Amino acid sequence: MADEAPFQILHNEVIQYIYTSAENGETENGRNITKLENMGFRVGQGLIERLTKDTARFKDELDIMKFICKDFWTCVFKKQIDNLRTNHQGIYVLQDNKFRLLGQLSAGKQYLDQAPKYLAFTCGLVRGALSNLGVKSIVTAEVSIMPACKPLVIHRQVTY
Amino acid sequence: MADEAPFQILHNEVIQYIYTSAENGETENGRNITKLENMGFRVGQGLIERLTKDTARFKDELDIMKFICKDFWTCVFKKQIDNLRTNHQGIYVLQDNKFRLLGQLSAGKQYLDQAPKYLAFTCGLVRGALSNLGVKSIVTAEVSIMPACKPLVIHRQVTY
Repeated sequence: MADEAPFQILHNEVIQYIYTSAENGETENGRNITKLENMGFRVGQGLIERLTKDTARFKDELDIMKFICKDFWTCVFKKQIDNLRTNHQGIYVLQDNKFRLLGQLSAGKQYLDQAPKYLAFTCGLVRGALSNLGVKSIVTAEVSIMPACKPLVIHRQVTY
Repeated sequence: MADEAPFQILHNEVIQYIYTSAENGETENGRNITKLENMGFRVGQGLIERLTKDTARFKDELDIMKFICKDFWTCVFKKQIDNLRTNHQGIYVLQDNKFRLLGQLSAGKQYLDQAPKYLAFTCGLVRGALSNLGVKSIVTAEVSIMPACKPLVIHRQVTY
């Protein structure tokens, strides 16, 4: 339980910090999500570099996505992605049924509008990791019923 | 190795973020250390609450400090404090010979002036944890030869 706690609590504090500075008029409110996403991006880049230091070269994109779902997700969230689906044309859907960074929010629809700020960092995290593996992507997330987060990874390769 | 990586990298990004915002003129530079310390304080509060949820009541201050050195430090840094000394009058010195958050900085005196910003968060972390256990304290850190950080916990109880 406590293993992922330092990361989780620090993540919450970062959100708090960025939103509080915005309220003080120091930054624009609309840029908060972008800031969180950017921070996630850089953490994802650094993390994937360490994780893939000694791994074999990846066969293809699907191989990369599997690595994200297993090793990468386990390193950050201490569990694997529960479900990976793909249309084999560049779109991947990763589903985490018990997403840790939303665990503190109450289940139910009441706080659903608060969810985006708890997902932005993770979207950036995945995008940064993929980016360092040479896969340009657009990463979005959605959450239907609260604790079951469904990070939806829409991925479009830009350069061939 | 990779277990503490997400926390470590996020910690570095937070420092980066706070210092970059300051450079853009959004905040005063002198307040950065305080901001990091405050963030650490709140993370320490949250963390100690989770860690002590099921522990027995602490006998005395020394008992609390031992908990910080073992369980608390292990949770955050995946290793224990190497050396705890005290004068039994409220001053405790915790020494970590391989402090993880400084591991990325090169050994040697060249970057010694960069150390404070990598220590501020941890000082707050310890102060927050102690504060939630009812121990008011002043926490400072020093680092002599680079990778051997010596978080110096000067603790003065204010209320009796």
